[in-house]
Amino acid sequence: MREIFKQEIEQLGLDLVSMAEQMSTGIEKATTALETADLTLAEQVIDADERIDEIQHSIDEQAVSLLARQQPVATDLRVVVTALRLSSTLERMGDLARHVADVARGRYPESAAQGPARDVLLQMATQAAKVGTQTVHLLQTHDLGLAASIESEDEVLDRLHRTSFEVVLDDSSELTRQQLVDVVLLGRYLERFGDHGVSVARRISFLVTGDLTNAVAAAETARTSEGA
Amino acid sequence: MREIFKQEIEQLGLDLVSMAEQMSTGIEKATTALETADLTLAEQVIDADERIDEIQHSIDEQAVSLLARQQPVATDLRVVVTALRLSSTLERMGDLARHVADVARGRYPESAAQGPARDVLLQMATQAAKVGTQTVHLLQTHDLGLAASIESEDEVLDRLHRTSFEVVLDDSSELTRQQLVDVVLLGRYLERFGDHGVSVARRISFLVTGDLTNAVAAAETARTSEGA
Repeated sequence: MREIFKQEIEQLGLDLVSMAEQMSTGIEKATTALETADLTLAEQVIDADERIDEIQHSIDEQAVSLLARQQPVATDLRVVVTALRLSSTLERMGDLARHVADVARGRYPESAAQGPARDVLLQMATQAAKVGTQTVHLLQTHDLGLAASIESEDEVLDRLHRTSFEVVLDDSSELTRQQLVDVVLLGRYLERFGDHGVSVARRISFLVTGDLTNAVAAAETARTSEGA
Repeated sequence: MREIFKQEIEQLGLDLVSMAEQMSTGIEKATTALETADLTLAEQVIDADERIDEIQHSIDEQAVSLLARQQPVATDLRVVVTALRLSSTLERMGDLARHVADVARGRYPESAAQGPARDVLLQMATQAAKVGTQTVHLLQTHDLGLAASIESEDEVLDRLHRTSFEVVLDDSSELTRQQLVDVVLLGRYLERFGDHGVSVARRISFLVTGDLTNAVAAAETARTSEGA
């Protein structure tokens, strides 16, 4: 019984990694689609999001089935409940990558990252993709150095987000209405992506260290300061 | 043992209702703060969000403790796992109410809902507040008529959201850059608020009917179409 339980917990972990990998590929492709106005890539991200949702359903079913059959306690219970929460966060990250790809597709054959905000948007997307990659490695290794790194990458992302508002609010920046809307929405999607990465980082830290301060902080990362 | 379990499940339900009530008060006050540029109300919403987060932590602790001590199966397990998910969704709705209040506070002594987009923004906020109220009643009564009603109110909210983009993208609408940013962000916050209401509606439907189609749909309400 115990052996099966261990295998099932390992499978949950593998599925979370697989989900994170697809999410990470999604944000990378969305970043390139944004930069190069690549319609095919954008559509790949949009299609792949369904696969991410399917993995989430499978993880959630496995986790609830584990709770029912194995009735874990203590650390085991914490692992299963954390898996439920991580799957939900990774699903949101996948959605946000898809939103970015949606905007890229919507502006095709133009690039959605144009004009005076192009640089900051591409920097934000690249930064989000970095958070995506580190999230995968964190789930693979549980290396808390990566958790700390995700937090600092997210701070860079937040700074870039503030810069994007400076560009938008500067009346001398030549932006069409559509470009203004795109900068605000893409900025919001990418900033939220980073927040969710931080939430994963804190949940894994909690799992590894049992430090509740991090758990509370994780619950609070959904909070973001007002956009502008 | 069984009696204590029943009491604990009831307490979870009461706490979820209390959390929803505070969230609902938050979005109502944020709507008024947006309309009348009422700084005091806006700050009340911002302060009250901490209380919502505290209730969430308490619910999550109770739920995990219940899983560990009572090891529920079948319907009971479904109720506890749903409570964990609902608390997370209600917390996000509280955050979004706070984001709206943040924008209202940021524009004080002006109203953040100004110019040609004022009407549509106030309609969206009013619509979101309606979703908030119905969410409370749904959690109190588990009346599936309310779940259906939340879905249709959310459709109205989505239509208003599209209208807000029409106003913003119309070069003849006289909007400052700040107003443009505010319309896009407030629109996004309020639209997401509605989505989360629908997610609550579908989870409660699943709990009541056991119909998995709704559960799958609930997992998918996080998905929203591209903003513009």
